[in-house]
Amino acid sequence: MDRSRLEAFSDGVFAVAITLLALNLSVAGPGHGRLLHQLGSHWPAFVAYLISFFTIGIIWVNHHALVHNIAIVDRTLLFLNLLLLAFVVAIPFATATMASYLTAGGQDAHVAMALYGAVFDAMSLGFMAIFEWTLHEGRTHQPVPQEARWAARVRFYAGQLVYLVAIGIAFISPSVALIMIGLVAVYYIFERTPSAAPSASGQAEER
Amino acid sequence: MDRSRLEAFSDGVFAVAITLLALNLSVAGPGHGRLLHQLGSHWPAFVAYLISFFTIGIIWVNHHALVHNIAIVDRTLLFLNLLLLAFVVAIPFATATMASYLTAGGQDAHVAMALYGAVFDAMSLGFMAIFEWTLHEGRTHQPVPQEARWAARVRFYAGQLVYLVAIGIAFISPSVALIMIGLVAVYYIFERTPSAAPSASGQAEER
Amino acid sequence: MDRSRLEAFSDGVFAVAITLLALNLSVAGPGHGRLLHQLGSHWPAFVAYLISFFTIGIIWVNHHALVHNIAIVDRTLLFLNLLLLAFVVAIPFATATMASYLTAGGQDAHVAMALYGAVFDAMSLGFMAIFEWTLHEGRTHQPVPQEARWAARVRFYAGQLVYLVAIGIAFISPSVALIMIGLVAVYYIFERTPSAAPSASGQAEER
Amino acid sequence: MDRSRLEAFSDGVFAVAITLLALNLSVAGPGHGRLLHQLGSHWPAFVAYLISFFTIGIIWVNHHALVHNIAIVDRTLLFLNLLLLAFVVAIPFATATMASYLTAGGQDAHVAMALYGAVFDAMSLGFMAIFEWTLHEGRTHQPVPQEARWAARVRFYAGQLVYLVAIGIAFISPSVALIMIGLVAVYYIFERTPSAAPSASGQAEER
Repeated sequence: MDRSRLEAFSDGVFAVAITLLALNLSVAGPGHGRLLHQLGSHWPAFVAYLISFFTIGIIWVNHHALVHNIAIVDRTLLFLNLLLLAFVVAIPFATATMASYLTAGGQDAHVAMALYGAVFDAMSLGFMAIFEWTLHEGRTHQPVPQEARWAARVRFYAGQLVYLVAIGIAFISPSVALIMIGLVAVYYIFERTPSAAPSASGQAEER
Repeated sequence: MDRSRLEAFSDGVFAVAITLLALNLSVAGPGHGRLLHQLGSHWPAFVAYLISFFTIGIIWVNHHALVHNIAIVDRTLLFLNLLLLAFVVAIPFATATMASYLTAGGQDAHVAMALYGAVFDAMSLGFMAIFEWTLHEGRTHQPVPQEARWAARVRFYAGQLVYLVAIGIAFISPSVALIMIGLVAVYYIFERTPSAAPSASGQAEER
Repeated sequence: MDRSRLEAFSDGVFAVAITLLALNLSVAGPGHGRLLHQLGSHWPAFVAYLISFFTIGIIWVNHHALVHNIAIVDRTLLFLNLLLLAFVVAIPFATATMASYLTAGGQDAHVAMALYGAVFDAMSLGFMAIFEWTLHEGRTHQPVPQEARWAARVRFYAGQLVYLVAIGIAFISPSVALIMIGLVAVYYIFERTPSAAPSASGQAEER
Repeated sequence: MDRSRLEAFSDGVFAVAITLLALNLSVAGPGHGRLLHQLGSHWPAFVAYLISFFTIGIIWVNHHALVHNIAIVDRTLLFLNLLLLAFVVAIPFATATMASYLTAGGQDAHVAMALYGAVFDAMSLGFMAIFEWTLHEGRTHQPVPQEARWAARVRFYAGQLVYLVAIGIAFISPSVALIMIGLVAVYYIFERTPSAAPSASGQAEER
């Protein structure tokens, strides 16, 4: 197994999962009330779509940066990568469930939002497992320096902490939890990914 | 992040989005009237399918020409690219909604057609944002010459103007608005994309 | 536009379209009669799935052989390629419609089977249009020799003829028409694609 | 046909099929009982999702290792590869059917589980057919040594045997059959794929 086909397959799964999110965008159609009203009452679906879309997009960006530095591909890495992808692929389901229950309101909106946060948290853990795998000597082209490791872990545990708190907050206010999960996406968009640290300028150039 | 993986991921999203359009092609099935009649009454779905299919196809072609010249990939570009893709992925939803309301007729056909035009307009703006990003010194292999910039902007704002007018026209006649949006696609098919301007012959050859 | 990204995008569309065929494989589920009986009464869906799957697979193989020899990519080729893909993407819809009406029986089974044949015929015409495009001087790495052109056209018009006859036969016996369309797929699997003719042995080797 | 486009197309089909599995993850939504209860009663869907996800993932890994060594691509290989993919693409259907009948219980849970095992068995046979194809002289870069052939066959027939026994067990206890099919996936994750045998260390390194 060479790295490039791992990337190609993962890219395919990311691309399909991010596009399937849009299957959740739908209205009941003619005969179910005014269209503007339907669109308005579905606002959780649109907000959820954007948050999930950008979160998958960011994980894809970070996945690339992480994998790009990898020198060998073993069975453990393949397993960890499949585990990460299994949670990525579950995001459209978690998004659809969360959006429909947030629209309906009631007690289960809390449970659905906690489920949404939990899937994101699990995906994030899967990503961190791959990162920890890369730290072993000889698995990367350039060893990840100690200070970069800790910087990455700090950033990672910050995101983890927000997801975990959001799961708890979901049982008090689903909307606040949704905003928190959205802010994690915004934070990661403008924050460099850990593994790109060693040669930042070189990474950015085309090769 | 190197450019080729940005292309691979974007290609995947374009390919899935363009194929998901076909999920909107469906008839109610046996027991809901004659098949020919069902197919005939669904003509907006077939016209909408073709227009959306070719519009996504053209944006893919132009996206390639634009990205091909890019030398560095930074966080801003990744964000703008995700924004563009988020609207591309929303096109199957906008297409399905427009087609079902145009079939049903009534007041909401106007709203649905305006929504359809608005998603195309937003996608077009996302594309133009990437184009403007490329104009900064050092971001492309070959600097985009001043006259090509203005030619591109003229072409772009022409398309934008038609989309905006079509959104307005949608509230008077959805069918006329649909024809206008279709004509934009036809126009762009036979019009060269801006960023390919510098070395037209070289671009066209295989490398 | 270089050829490799045309291939990548087309590969993506072929792969998604061929996989979406399986969405048509479904049973009504628990509470709708014995599972074996449901599976048995859905036999047209399974036969249609196999025929459509292999037909798309073969068109993909032939598309590759055709595009592999192309030296320049112009707007006309991009348009013809999008036209071909628009019919490829419509195949899951035509397959689902045909299978459900063939299962239900009645007059509309004839119309649905004719529609199925017509989409295959249109896809085939789109493919031939690309082939004719390649015959112009300078568009391919190696010019297609005259005798290969005619051999290709004979093979192509043979397939066309069968599709057209099948559309007619569909109004007499949908099952016979389905068998004919299936036989075209079998024929093309074991028949070399035209454009690969010039250097058959070289084509087959890895590069 | 060169090998790399065979890989690209197959990767695309694997990626779409593995992602479509998640369409089976769904709950009835608001108004159909408590969400936690719905999620709990859908446990077969979640277990089936994981087993199918990892099985497709492993077949993808093994497919890569097998194809990587191939030197020529002929019509027979293309046909065998399409046959393998036709069963891969049928897995989401088999998974959804099995999960819904296992949830509902009753006599048809046995039939649905046997169907699930049969699709896995057929996919496995399709894979073995490609492996046998590679054993002919001159079809691979490095000939597969005799001892590796037998080791591969032993491993393969072990998996086949478990699938066949699981199909039989399905008529006694669907849950036990499901566990057996899951264990095959676990076994193959941590077992090297046959064709990678010749130069194990070299295979693992990036090229």
